[in-house]
Amino acid sequence: MYKIVLMRHGESTWNKENRFTGWTDVDLTEQGEAEAVAAGQLLKKEGYSFDVAFTSVLKRANKTLNAVLEQLDLLWIPVTHHWRLNERHYGALQGLNKAETAAKFGDDQVLVWRRSYDVPPPALEEGDERLTLSDPRYADMADGEFPRTECLKDTVARFVPYWLETIAPVVKSGKRVVIAAHGNSLRALIKYLDNVSDDEIVALNIPTAQPLVYELDADLKPIKHYYLGDAEAIAAAMAAVANQGKAKA
Amino acid sequence: MYKIVLMRHGESTWNKENRFTGWTDVDLTEQGEAEAVAAGQLLKKEGYSFDVAFTSVLKRANKTLNAVLEQLDLLWIPVTHHWRLNERHYGALQGLNKAETAAKFGDDQVLVWRRSYDVPPPALEEGDERLTLSDPRYADMADGEFPRTECLKDTVARFVPYWLETIAPVVKSGKRVVIAAHGNSLRALIKYLDNVSDDEIVALNIPTAQPLVYELDADLKPIKHYYLGDAEAIAAAMAAVANQGKAKA
Repeated sequence: MYKIVLMRHGESTWNKENRFTGWTDVDLTEQGEAEAVAAGQLLKKEGYSFDVAFTSVLKRANKTLNAVLEQLDLLWIPVTHHWRLNERHYGALQGLNKAETAAKFGDDQVLVWRRSYDVPPPALEEGDERLTLSDPRYADMADGEFPRTECLKDTVARFVPYWLETIAPVVKSGKRVVIAAHGNSLRALIKYLDNVSDDEIVALNIPTAQPLVYELDADLKPIKHYYLGDAEAIAAAMAAVANQGKAKA
Repeated sequence: MYKIVLMRHGESTWNKENRFTGWTDVDLTEQGEAEAVAAGQLLKKEGYSFDVAFTSVLKRANKTLNAVLEQLDLLWIPVTHHWRLNERHYGALQGLNKAETAAKFGDDQVLVWRRSYDVPPPALEEGDERLTLSDPRYADMADGEFPRTECLKDTVARFVPYWLETIAPVVKSGKRVVIAAHGNSLRALIKYLDNVSDDEIVALNIPTAQPLVYELDADLKPIKHYYLGDAEAIAAAMAAVANQGKAKA
């Protein structure tokens, strides 16, 4: 039996401002950093340790991982960074305040963009300054791989192959793996692992910086999963995520 | 022509307490963290960027590197951690206050242990709790590789092969490399690169968290080297290092 730990990054500045973030490389808030430290302390208290880590190329996930690893005295373990673990790309919505977008397009349209499985938001146009093709962290991408927008289905399509080809063999080798990523890249993995339907996966809310343990059998099929944290805190954190994107009075 | 940047970790708690540290995994002080941030800001101001980083498996170097990478917005680049970049192992002196050791053994003996090229301090005995053979960060070491004590010559003997086999090919591939390590592992590299004599290398003081640039030719022979920081600050920092280990009144 194998055990992996999934973790969404701590609160980011744009979570706090209720903006669509996607691939925008925003920082953690002070609260987000504290959440990450608390996650590391919780993992330590529960006796967890790791041999390797995987994360995105976005600093909110990288910093969350580093804070966790520091608490566990594991800053020396190998960390692999890859864009395939990045958050879902939010296209032309990136940078917009969610409440303003909701007020402009209506709650329903925003909910469709945020929570339908296969309807992407409007794409970034060529020349848009948010199309950061020259960012060195994306230099290894093949032509056409840099997304202009993504629905969750697209995120699944680019993350699951990375799980299968790169992360799963490491898990099967017996190494203890932690994955520090984003709400939608983790949804993508959970959809694949638990064979969640398209409708159900978009309703699944993943709280920030709460270690989520998956116990897997010899074929990496889930036996069970659970959050390490206090049930009440998890429920409150999930509700907070679910309420993002609703227009504010 | 290639350019690499070497950096010693920021001030550690045992630098401050004037204790022999070696492989003891002590943390940075607040000042040490601030030094690391300042080093990152200086590198950024001077237009430096990196493709890959190498560091030891000791947290004072790992945290210094992470602070630098955060300032440069490079938390996503590949980092390789290896024990061969660790500080010189100080054997049975590890943990002792340098001034007390000097008072006990005399300034001259301490200076011999600290600064002779080929006289190691007393070795750790089997069963000494400082002989952390079961630490998972050293699990990949071959039998007999874990040092009981080291003179600088021993540190050279275990770091230079890693430079030649692992780091040098990466530099030659054109990748921009930063190395975040320790006073004596950096001395080891500098001795090799600049062909410094045994006597001269032990007198070379490397200040904490000051980016040291080496420009190398096609065969990785040094063309020139220089600190990026202000000359006066560098001189003061070097003098502070040189004064460590002298008995205090």
